[in-house]
Amino acid sequence: MSAIILFAHGARDPEWARPLQRLRAAILSSVPDADVRLAFLEFMTPTLAEALDAVAASGAGHVDVIPVFLAQGGHVKRDVPLILQAARERHPVLRINLHEALGETQQVIDAMACCVLDATLPLPPLGAA
Amino acid sequence: MSAIILFAHGARDPEWARPLQRLRAAILSSVPDADVRLAFLEFMTPTLAEALDAVAASGAGHVDVIPVFLAQGGHVKRDVPLILQAARERHPVLRINLHEALGETQQVIDAMACCVLDATLPLPPLGAA
Repeated sequence: MSAIILFAHGARDPEWARPLQRLRAAILSSVPDADVRLAFLEFMTPTLAEALDAVAASGAGHVDVIPVFLAQGGHVKRDVPLILQAARERHPVLRINLHEALGETQQVIDAMACCVLDATLPLPPLGAA
Repeated sequence: MSAIILFAHGARDPEWARPLQRLRAAILSSVPDADVRLAFLEFMTPTLAEALDAVAASGAGHVDVIPVFLAQGGHVKRDVPLILQAARERHPVLRINLHEALGETQQVIDAMACCVLDATLPLPPLGAA
């Protein structure tokens, strides 16, 4: 058994989590029986540590931690390894695989570029080839 | 003449801006003569106000402001409208068009879901159909 944790920063505004919930739904639409959980650095719960404890308690042997961040800043570089190290000590049997921040992947950057072009390019004049 | 401002949070780590620079490059690869600028809320320069002043000084009549945020949190909901309002008062001729946060667009959410699935799904066994 394995699980996926979508780990994001969190914010005071509850609506901030909505795109994360939509991302979880998009994953589940392809793999309906996947165990996909959200976790947050601050302001929202569960924390990453709590989510890892819950995954371990579920009996999963493997978890993929996906940082849903635009870039590998201090949070992903410094905070996350410390949280994972502590979780590995609490749950030595659980294999924890930390992935690249989603915003650093070329596929996501290309999709963002397409959105910008779609939203900003003037429409060609009517009758243009 | 029009311009695009990719507006992001900013961070202390200079490497944080790298995906933004890659996003700018991806846009320019489709529209090489576009005027695409980065701007930041904090920690990095130029600020959004500075970028808007520079766009106005360039003689552009229109600017699209694209929030490169995962979600419409307090920064996008509260801070950005105030910055834009002040810029509109300084530059009444410049038309400023604020767009949805990129992370809220379905195209970007779908790309993120694909990345998660690519990175986490077990490979099918050799010889599987």
